[in-house]
Amino acid sequence: MKRYAIIVAGGSGKRMGVNIPKQFLKLEGVPILMHTLQAFHLTDFSIELIVTLPQEEIQFWNELCEWHYNYTPHRIVPGGNTRFHSVKNALDYVQEESLVAVHDGVRPFVSKEIILEAYQLAEAKGNAITSVAMKDSVRRVETDKNQNIDRNSLRAIQTPQTFQSTILKAAYEQTYKEEFTDDASVVEAYGQQIHLIEGDYKNIKITTPEDLLIAEALLKAK
Amino acid sequence: MKRYAIIVAGGSGKRMGVNIPKQFLKLEGVPILMHTLQAFHLTDFSIELIVTLPQEEIQFWNELCEWHYNYTPHRIVPGGNTRFHSVKNALDYVQEESLVAVHDGVRPFVSKEIILEAYQLAEAKGNAITSVAMKDSVRRVETDKNQNIDRNSLRAIQTPQTFQSTILKAAYEQTYKEEFTDDASVVEAYGQQIHLIEGDYKNIKITTPEDLLIAEALLKAK
Repeated sequence: MKRYAIIVAGGSGKRMGVNIPKQFLKLEGVPILMHTLQAFHLTDFSIELIVTLPQEEIQFWNELCEWHYNYTPHRIVPGGNTRFHSVKNALDYVQEESLVAVHDGVRPFVSKEIILEAYQLAEAKGNAITSVAMKDSVRRVETDKNQNIDRNSLRAIQTPQTFQSTILKAAYEQTYKEEFTDDASVVEAYGQQIHLIEGDYKNIKITTPEDLLIAEALLKAK
Repeated sequence: MKRYAIIVAGGSGKRMGVNIPKQFLKLEGVPILMHTLQAFHLTDFSIELIVTLPQEEIQFWNELCEWHYNYTPHRIVPGGNTRFHSVKNALDYVQEESLVAVHDGVRPFVSKEIILEAYQLAEAKGNAITSVAMKDSVRRVETDKNQNIDRNSLRAIQTPQTFQSTILKAAYEQTYKEEFTDDASVVEAYGQQIHLIEGDYKNIKITTPEDLLIAEALLKAK
């Protein structure tokens, strides 16, 4: 079955304390987003890559691609106001009867094994969502109190989140709700049961200056 | 009020894939546990440090201290079978009417500000538990299904967890239960309301080989 990957790159640099959007910050001289595209491309050259970017960043990204001789082929789609709307825009370019991985542009360390396993399980079961065990104790907070909850009953969710396109496209026809924090929550609200696969602590989301340091260390160790 | 810090160092090196216990692995040439002791000592020289260590590691630790000219003064107490029993043993050396921070031996990056704020809030309110917001989406898992839960309702718990000694010692008189994954859960089971303070993503717990790489990057950036 044909495979797509929608790479969502909508973040600003605000949490980084810089003006350059975080997906364009460099790791070993190369923008993070290029590392992420390569992770998919080198796993399987036939994966069709769709990158969602804020409209005002598209020109800069094209210049970066020229500057870095980045020939990883990909389609660029303007992002929407939220992650939900960005993915929805990208889905217009996905044909039916295919598999679609949705992945954060700032998770460059996703492994080949996880990418492939997610496509395989999604083909068999409808979806496959990458997740890891909670390392820390967790408390549930309410307005004026909080209580311990069993961390073994929880999983932290990463990307890729991979789906059969028919299901994903139909789920994204729903009206947007604030609780749609990821694709799994959209597909769950559409009535599908979610299937988790084992992720990887190295598959970090780079969102803070410390994350960038961590990313540099992980890249050196590769 | 007199201040103690119980530094819990009970881990093996299993998850690290090495035979040396993880608290003894080196960061910039110095065992992690020494970095952690220094974080407290340099925050306030008057903090009395108690380290819990498995009985069979105490001699090795003493040799490491000699070798590294480590003069951070601390008492060593043999650990128990679980974290609960280790903290309980250490509490025998804590006098009443004091403040006690309990801290993971493998969290060397705790900041001075957090250590001090935790003592201050614990003095005022009975306890202060360090926590951070969840970065990832979270799902609750049951045997054959799972569902999205609002990550804004959850906090990931770190250490230090700081208490008035009278409360902490009384709470540790309870019979051990498996759900006592940290000190806050012990004190909560004793009937106390838990007070959260803002932690720090840099205050990582070093438990895997990747964490050690990350720790080296964070240390270089300091």
